[in-house]
Amino acid sequence: MEKFQHGGQIYDKFGKPINFLDFSANINPLGLSEKILQTLQKNFRGIINYPDSNATELKSALSRKYKISAENLILLNGAAEFFYLYCNVFRPKKILIPVPSFSEYERAAKSSGAEVEFFLTRAEENFKIDVEKILKRNADCVIIGRPNNPTGNLISIEEILKLAEKFSVVIDESFIDFLPIESARNFLSEKIFVVQSLTKIFAIPGLRLGFAVAEKNFAERLNFAKDVWNVNFLAQKVGAVALSDEKFLKDTRIWLEGEKKYFAEKLSELPIKIFPPSVNFILIRLKSKELAAFTLKKLQEKKILVRNCANFAGLDERYLRLAIRTRTENNLLLEALREIL
Amino acid sequence: MEKFQHGGQIYDKFGKPINFLDFSANINPLGLSEKILQTLQKNFRGIINYPDSNATELKSALSRKYKISAENLILLNGAAEFFYLYCNVFRPKKILIPVPSFSEYERAAKSSGAEVEFFLTRAEENFKIDVEKILKRNADCVIIGRPNNPTGNLISIEEILKLAEKFSVVIDESFIDFLPIESARNFLSEKIFVVQSLTKIFAIPGLRLGFAVAEKNFAERLNFAKDVWNVNFLAQKVGAVALSDEKFLKDTRIWLEGEKKYFAEKLSELPIKIFPPSVNFILIRLKSKELAAFTLKKLQEKKILVRNCANFAGLDERYLRLAIRTRTENNLLLEALREIL
Repeated sequence: MEKFQHGGQIYDKFGKPINFLDFSANINPLGLSEKILQTLQKNFRGIINYPDSNATELKSALSRKYKISAENLILLNGAAEFFYLYCNVFRPKKILIPVPSFSEYERAAKSSGAEVEFFLTRAEENFKIDVEKILKRNADCVIIGRPNNPTGNLISIEEILKLAEKFSVVIDESFIDFLPIESARNFLSEKIFVVQSLTKIFAIPGLRLGFAVAEKNFAERLNFAKDVWNVNFLAQKVGAVALSDEKFLKDTRIWLEGEKKYFAEKLSELPIKIFPPSVNFILIRLKSKELAAFTLKKLQEKKILVRNCANFAGLDERYLRLAIRTRTENNLLLEALREIL
Repeated sequence: MEKFQHGGQIYDKFGKPINFLDFSANINPLGLSEKILQTLQKNFRGIINYPDSNATELKSALSRKYKISAENLILLNGAAEFFYLYCNVFRPKKILIPVPSFSEYERAAKSSGAEVEFFLTRAEENFKIDVEKILKRNADCVIIGRPNNPTGNLISIEEILKLAEKFSVVIDESFIDFLPIESARNFLSEKIFVVQSLTKIFAIPGLRLGFAVAEKNFAERLNFAKDVWNVNFLAQKVGAVALSDEKFLKDTRIWLEGEKKYFAEKLSELPIKIFPPSVNFILIRLKSKELAAFTLKKLQEKKILVRNCANFAGLDERYLRLAIRTRTENNLLLEALREIL
């Protein structure tokens, strides 16, 4: 497995999609809303023009929904773009990353020449991020997922504020909208940067869309370090529509609340270790690397894809990440696992 | 006029498109091909999955068409992304930019903290880029459009090779496919980087798509400095299809050959100075700033948009850039200009 490979590898070596049931990418299983599909159908001919370089519609939808002032906003071609942008603009010398976590933090840091120090969280503590211990380390910047991918760990606002007394803190809230909790965006300062993906919640990863918020002078520098067309025309259109769709968000949270509980309970009946999920994915650990390899092979035969976590710093071949999907799909995976284990 | 504002500003302050005849963006007026429209129609639901992070289909279409080895290739979310990427990765201290030219060269350079030195080309010499004079300057890198936007000036391969004896040379061939000439891509070295937009020729600026080629170790560094999903799913799909459409390219060149001659001839009957076009845009100069302002105002009343070149370094309010469009559209602009001037 390659070091920086991700989930969602649904293309074969010819670039053709394989017809697998995909539990490896953490995409909202409610799928593309009718409103999004209509927007695409109605607007795809609009790609003949440049995207609106002011992204007026999208910005006002974001401002309306999240109460963000335009001067704090950085629009992104997917949330992952932010980590590269941040490292390029601020050139931190040393970046501290609690792991296991999304590997693009490390990749972006290294690509800018930063030294990366891992802070290893422990399975025995459910991968809790111990802020007091982190505060004893030295670094220019800390990057943390909230909730953290793949562990599901959810750092509190209070803990973020503590970290920001010492470090610049980049909080990746790419899954935050799955939960009815307060965002770190509301605590913006010169030391707190918050990035959010819109592709997971709205099931549009192929379109690329995200945003970040930063103190206004920093936001200006970040915006100056990328071209003004980085968010494509369709992503702008779809984003504006999706952000106004309160019902979809409500339905998503209702689905997740029920399904997270159900899936975790049913998984816990199997001979595996489960780490408590917070959003739409669950980290599990099998008893041995051999058993995990066997499980992956058997799932593949059944055309089911899960995320092998071997390339997450701090994890190994025993760990798998499972997206939480619809009841029918989750039952298919549960049935397969019952057969295998 | 804002310093880094571009053509194609077809959105009002609410982000709604205005219904103008747009001569301000240099987009192929043959428009979206039937094959592209079918690809969009067939694939837009595919945005529910991540883009292929290997971009296998798109890469093989590029390799087939341009004989590029995959190890030299950098895929881009629009060509403009490259200038930022290049400056971030190589951090040149001083960049020399012959002007007038595409303003993103300067913006990207400055955003990375590079010193920018302009090399002013002169209207009296049709904005010829004098390589011998440039070679007397000092810089780490030179960025040149080939053909250059907005002047249409076309630097030769021989001249590029001369420049590369002293500088790293970034050649922006974003309009090259409009002409049947050899690309600087074929002369790749550690000193020559070539970037190309695919949005002008295929009329897909809203989708964002471009690529660059570099010596393989440099290409690796450039690819490591951006996330692997920067080219969205639809851009990958459409790009692969468009690149295989030889007929569209042939039709485009036939259209341009005829229309460039016609439009330039008819414009030359008016009391304006015309700079010889090479591709699908023409730079013109009116007799005074007042007359240019009057012309812009009158064209606006007729719902015709042209590119005011006041914010190009080395030009002023007298200069306008006109895209070359279809015969009918060009005649509308000609008629309007005849009435005004």
